[in-house]
Amino acid sequence: MADKKNDASSGRRYRLLANPTSDNDMIGIFDSGVGGMTVAKAVEQALPDHRLIYFGDLARTPYGSKSPETITDYARQDTEFLLAKGARLIIIACNTAASIASEQLRREFDVPIFEVITPAVDKAIATSSSGRIGVIGTRATVNSGVYEEKIRAQASEAKVFSQPCPLLVPLVEEGWLDKRETKMILRRYLAPLKRHQVDTLVLGCTHYPLLKELIQPRIGKRTKVIDSSREVADCLKNYLATHPELDSQLRHGGSNRYYVSDLTEAAGSIARRIFGRPMELHKVTI
Amino acid sequence: MADKKNDASSGRRYRLLANPTSDNDMIGIFDSGVGGMTVAKAVEQALPDHRLIYFGDLARTPYGSKSPETITDYARQDTEFLLAKGARLIIIACNTAASIASEQLRREFDVPIFEVITPAVDKAIATSSSGRIGVIGTRATVNSGVYEEKIRAQASEAKVFSQPCPLLVPLVEEGWLDKRETKMILRRYLAPLKRHQVDTLVLGCTHYPLLKELIQPRIGKRTKVIDSSREVADCLKNYLATHPELDSQLRHGGSNRYYVSDLTEAAGSIARRIFGRPMELHKVTI
Repeated sequence: MADKKNDASSGRRYRLLANPTSDNDMIGIFDSGVGGMTVAKAVEQALPDHRLIYFGDLARTPYGSKSPETITDYARQDTEFLLAKGARLIIIACNTAASIASEQLRREFDVPIFEVITPAVDKAIATSSSGRIGVIGTRATVNSGVYEEKIRAQASEAKVFSQPCPLLVPLVEEGWLDKRETKMILRRYLAPLKRHQVDTLVLGCTHYPLLKELIQPRIGKRTKVIDSSREVADCLKNYLATHPELDSQLRHGGSNRYYVSDLTEAAGSIARRIFGRPMELHKVTI
Repeated sequence: MADKKNDASSGRRYRLLANPTSDNDMIGIFDSGVGGMTVAKAVEQALPDHRLIYFGDLARTPYGSKSPETITDYARQDTEFLLAKGARLIIIACNTAASIASEQLRREFDVPIFEVITPAVDKAIATSSSGRIGVIGTRATVNSGVYEEKIRAQASEAKVFSQPCPLLVPLVEEGWLDKRETKMILRRYLAPLKRHQVDTLVLGCTHYPLLKELIQPRIGKRTKVIDSSREVADCLKNYLATHPELDSQLRHGGSNRYYVSDLTEAAGSIARRIFGRPMELHKVTI
């Protein structure tokens, strides 16, 4: 699908031609692991006739505790894998990779690149009436300051309160979705945001929708919780509605494919929990 | 230092000659991240005149939740890196890699390969009077069954009770060494072992010595806690006492070097906590 691959100092660039529709054309989605499957599920629901390919980098998960340089390298390799498999657009379904690497990927690759941050930011601004917005995410996401920057670029008077929640990903991956310790840890993480009286809370990590039922009562029912997985799926749906050629290329009879760079029992069980059905995960080395 | 490198189907083999002493000759230690620094510290204390080189695979940490195949690949690459830098023997300072990959590495590399499991097993058998021995570790270590197998090979009447504790590594890496949630999670993990009345508990993960002060009161003061970091350092010291040529090769004026495949603030701070001094970590790509 790439007609030109140029290893210039600016990095490889893939250029798309208006080539004939192929049964390989797909929506490409990647994440550091299985959390991004909440995005894939939302895309499956929003666009049931479109084909998607997913890549979860389980061999190197998690990204959230790694350095910006390493995260950018990994995101580039993930994107290259999906493009080589036939992706015509990319969704970065990992807040960490989105916050650190999305600008760089947009410079390097000539395909539409969506990510989970911008749609959630737009929704948060539209939702908040007090302008007091909370964000929870991994340490890398929070340290990047990307949510604050994007929110304040559009709503300069907004006050953004960010809280890194590094233990939530391991808790979700353990399946401790209803354990007392998980509730206590959530209460500890959410306490500062509650004190700041945020009226909107962005779930800035694709694992967190699995904890939404625990988060909502602990942040308070008057606080609106924004799920970035759903927002990015809606955003993609709107985009395709205005890009009929690409839209029709992505509609065909192939099946959705889920790739991972490592295959573990835990991953299979989280995938099943997210989709509500057993998932066939294909192992690849990238 | 390797005079022959043979990419036969059995894997690469490094053969050591009795070549002249070099200032590069070192004790090589690797771990998936920073936990293995508890081993490096114990080796520094046991063998202060010997030089060591450490590699922490922070770019791909943790290993404990990954598949045996991926863990073996990573362990092989870590070993190759250390040998290329001048290691004359290897300590696998990661229980996960030791449990999954040590036999394979011994087949592939012609250098002495130590690991954290065997010395801890020997000590546990020597210590236990009831023969009821507990083991805590990552999910991969516990699933491998290696502790049970090794203990029962030497003490067939022993009863081994193993408990995976997958949240302890993230808790240590967060520095939550004295938080209420950490204590609750530890109590939950240790409860079955307490019920089984183990009289000896092996810390089967190199992160866990950092939690020893919390573990001892929760498992009970009559249970002896075995720290594999200290045991492997003693084992190496005994080995070198009977191998004077290698021993003298490793004693020279060079300085100990600490390499990591990713550099993060959190890693620096855990390293400082383990060694009680600021540590210079060198980033390498392997």
